[in-house]
Amino acid sequence: MSKQATPQLFAAVDLGSNSFHMIIVRIVNGSIQVLSRLKQRVQLAEGLDEKNHLNQAAIERGVACLALFAERLQGIPAANIRTVGTYTLRRAVNNQDFLDAAKAVYPFDIQIISGQEEAELIYSGVSHTQPENGRKLVVDIGGGSTEMIIGDNFTPLRAESRHIGCVSFAKQFFDENKISEKQFNHAYQEALTRIEDLSWDYRNLGWQSVLGSSGTIKTISQIMLENFNKDGIITAENLRQLTELVLKTDSLDKLKIAGLSDDRVNLFLPGLAILRAVFETFRIEQMRYSDGALREGVMYGLEQSFQVDDIRERTINSIMRNFAVDREQAMRVSNTANLLFKKYARWQNLTQTDELQSILIAATKLYEIGLVLNHSGIQKHSAYMLQSMELPGFSPEQKQLLVHLVRFHVKSFKNMELPQHESYFHRQDIIALTLIMRLAVIINRSRQATELTENYILHVNHDATQWELEFENGYLARNPLLLTDLNEEQELLKALDIQLDIKGGNE
Amino acid sequence: MSKQATPQLFAAVDLGSNSFHMIIVRIVNGSIQVLSRLKQRVQLAEGLDEKNHLNQAAIERGVACLALFAERLQGIPAANIRTVGTYTLRRAVNNQDFLDAAKAVYPFDIQIISGQEEAELIYSGVSHTQPENGRKLVVDIGGGSTEMIIGDNFTPLRAESRHIGCVSFAKQFFDENKISEKQFNHAYQEALTRIEDLSWDYRNLGWQSVLGSSGTIKTISQIMLENFNKDGIITAENLRQLTELVLKTDSLDKLKIAGLSDDRVNLFLPGLAILRAVFETFRIEQMRYSDGALREGVMYGLEQSFQVDDIRERTINSIMRNFAVDREQAMRVSNTANLLFKKYARWQNLTQTDELQSILIAATKLYEIGLVLNHSGIQKHSAYMLQSMELPGFSPEQKQLLVHLVRFHVKSFKNMELPQHESYFHRQDIIALTLIMRLAVIINRSRQATELTENYILHVNHDATQWELEFENGYLARNPLLLTDLNEEQELLKALDIQLDIKGGNE
Repeated sequence: MSKQATPQLFAAVDLGSNSFHMIIVRIVNGSIQVLSRLKQRVQLAEGLDEKNHLNQAAIERGVACLALFAERLQGIPAANIRTVGTYTLRRAVNNQDFLDAAKAVYPFDIQIISGQEEAELIYSGVSHTQPENGRKLVVDIGGGSTEMIIGDNFTPLRAESRHIGCVSFAKQFFDENKISEKQFNHAYQEALTRIEDLSWDYRNLGWQSVLGSSGTIKTISQIMLENFNKDGIITAENLRQLTELVLKTDSLDKLKIAGLSDDRVNLFLPGLAILRAVFETFRIEQMRYSDGALREGVMYGLEQSFQVDDIRERTINSIMRNFAVDREQAMRVSNTANLLFKKYARWQNLTQTDELQSILIAATKLYEIGLVLNHSGIQKHSAYMLQSMELPGFSPEQKQLLVHLVRFHVKSFKNMELPQHESYFHRQDIIALTLIMRLAVIINRSRQATELTENYILHVNHDATQWELEFENGYLARNPLLLTDLNEEQELLKALDIQLDIKGGNE
Repeated sequence: MSKQATPQLFAAVDLGSNSFHMIIVRIVNGSIQVLSRLKQRVQLAEGLDEKNHLNQAAIERGVACLALFAERLQGIPAANIRTVGTYTLRRAVNNQDFLDAAKAVYPFDIQIISGQEEAELIYSGVSHTQPENGRKLVVDIGGGSTEMIIGDNFTPLRAESRHIGCVSFAKQFFDENKISEKQFNHAYQEALTRIEDLSWDYRNLGWQSVLGSSGTIKTISQIMLENFNKDGIITAENLRQLTELVLKTDSLDKLKIAGLSDDRVNLFLPGLAILRAVFETFRIEQMRYSDGALREGVMYGLEQSFQVDDIRERTINSIMRNFAVDREQAMRVSNTANLLFKKYARWQNLTQTDELQSILIAATKLYEIGLVLNHSGIQKHSAYMLQSMELPGFSPEQKQLLVHLVRFHVKSFKNMELPQHESYFHRQDIIALTLIMRLAVIINRSRQATELTENYILHVNHDATQWELEFENGYLARNPLLLTDLNEEQELLKALDIQLDIKGGNE
């Protein structure tokens, strides 16, 4: 058993057909902290011939990479390391040659996993990272294979892996530098053929959201973000436009697309062809990129305690623990915010009630994390910290709203920017939530249970530009600092064209 | 006894002649975290007449402020609150009227302290906040009195308080809005007269550094920073120039000096006259502003555990604890950095050896704090965090160097700015320390005790542009990832015109 003082280290290693990945984490206060990520483009699949023989050059590239990884893995208990090999190692008839050569430099077990297991691990990696609840379709286009999984919450219902990959397709269907519509269509048709049998079954199960992982989908999401929309969501229509655009060029040299990095250029066309086939087969309308992938799935499987039911709850709790947030204060502000939110919601016709409420509550629990840096400028510090963190369980839009509420929980609205068009949340709701957050903080500034907990009355007009907060008569006279703070708030809110009336000052 | 889960809150309240101050802190992991600071300009001294009678208006202003403070202090155990009254309350013949009126709204004890005790508390507040060791002279110019203390480390040797204050002098010597050299000189002479008896005795004791606290000195330091120098140090010569400049104007309305805020204008001239008298009396060459003051002294006295011997050590340890820094890794990097530094120092003619070494070691202990936010961009996160924190025990220049070393401990030198002229540290030493820090991090990237600990050989040429790092033969061949990292470093260092040679690659 390790000493209490030594942090427990874990590592997940993924020997993919395009890249080898390693992630090393440690457990701090029960939460996962990433210590390092290493990625090497090995392009193992490139060395697999038609007879599924892996050539010596590819084996050597892979082994050299494992030697580097081994150096970094020294001292981590072998039981805390899991190394998995995927498509190319699965297919290679001489994969034992690879394992034998690896043994000399890499003293840890390597498990070559089945396509089914790979698909399930990917599903676990994605579902432990994303906020989407309910049924989802997860797609991972790798170097040698593509995984398609449907599941409910953390449980995969159907998991399939097919021999379609961006590295193997590049080798099979595409010339070195040429762009040709014929080649593209050939690859696209081949991909269609290999997955069409899944179409009816999958569509029958249905889903509420579609998530994609790995390099190909990451790259295309990045291209969407820089050329088509502001959120990186991949839509069927944008994919079609992108393809059209690309096929107008005749060589990769000339292809200049914002978001496409040099080292992905040669895998871009095969990846795009496969992704279009996936969209077509499953009639996907839109897909979102997920950071979680195979190695995260492997990692979550390493430790029982990593697996939980509510990801967002786990994220919030571990941040509160890490930064020693005063939980009693968080609870007081939460309760007040909740109450005000309910009263606000009663006056408005909200469509995202539950989602807005849960982000507001998250903000009330996290706004004080910046105290660990400095009381002065706390709103900036807390916002910087949340912005910098990965927040499993929060979508990009939810994270943005959370950071906004924390950034403007106190002080002036200087430099405040709000999304105006096509925002996921409505501008009015964002402003209303900001105001509710601020009022909840002001009301609890004394860090004490307030006399009244359920006795505020809140009126809000239809477009939320006029607010009236009414306290029990005489309450504000007994709490002059609160009245001062509320009066200052009235002034500040003028910058947002909001009128705040305060009642309850008279004895 | 309070429950384990409830954080212990403490408060220090200082009823000064110009402002009332309150600071509320809590103890987290044994370190002090400021929860709030409140300041109200009460200008109590303004209501004290020649017969030392405090008028009713001033009493009411003071009591109204105490009512606000009391609201915020609800629920903090009375034993954890200390409230002290200073000069004006000490002098007021009717101070019992104030105490009686206060009792109705402020249910905590108020102690009116002697000038001697006030001086000692100020010394404690300053010496617990500043990095200066050895003997120091501390000066605090308040609204009603000025304290002058000489001490060694945390122990005051001589502590005096005299009836010279910026509020009382404003009332006594200056017209409302006029600036007149005659009035200024009158105030200056009066201040000289009241402290000249201390001159010989204090200068006989001597000191290594001079520190000033409170509003007057803060304001003048700010003016120095914006008009005379880059570090806010107050020098005798700059003070003389500032006076000359100010006396050229004939009314406060017309006085526009960068760094002087509107609410300090009317106390500025009396404060300046007193400060010049202090400089003259003690032949002070330069003085630095200290954030620590009376309320910090009161606070440090509240809890035995707040008091320690080595402030910088306490600061580093509490940050490491707060952010769960991996201490074994910090120790490895420290040891390597120490070793490299000693070898570097042997090749150079350093004047600030101990100081440089101690900042380097602090950086090796703190560079990983940003992991708590994100592994990606750690150098930016750690630097942001340190930059945002108050770091008791570090001077502004030391903090700047520390943040620099952490900011550039890894990755490229893009956006790196180095002070070129008049810097406290030499440019060459800053760059050399940066390089040592980076090498120490690279060498320990495997997070394992390295085979060799004392066996690097380091050669550095006279201007530190050529470095040679020699490992035991074959060591790098056995650690290819280390060699890769060192080769990358060679490339990056070209941006700084530094040549790094690596030896020890051959088996």
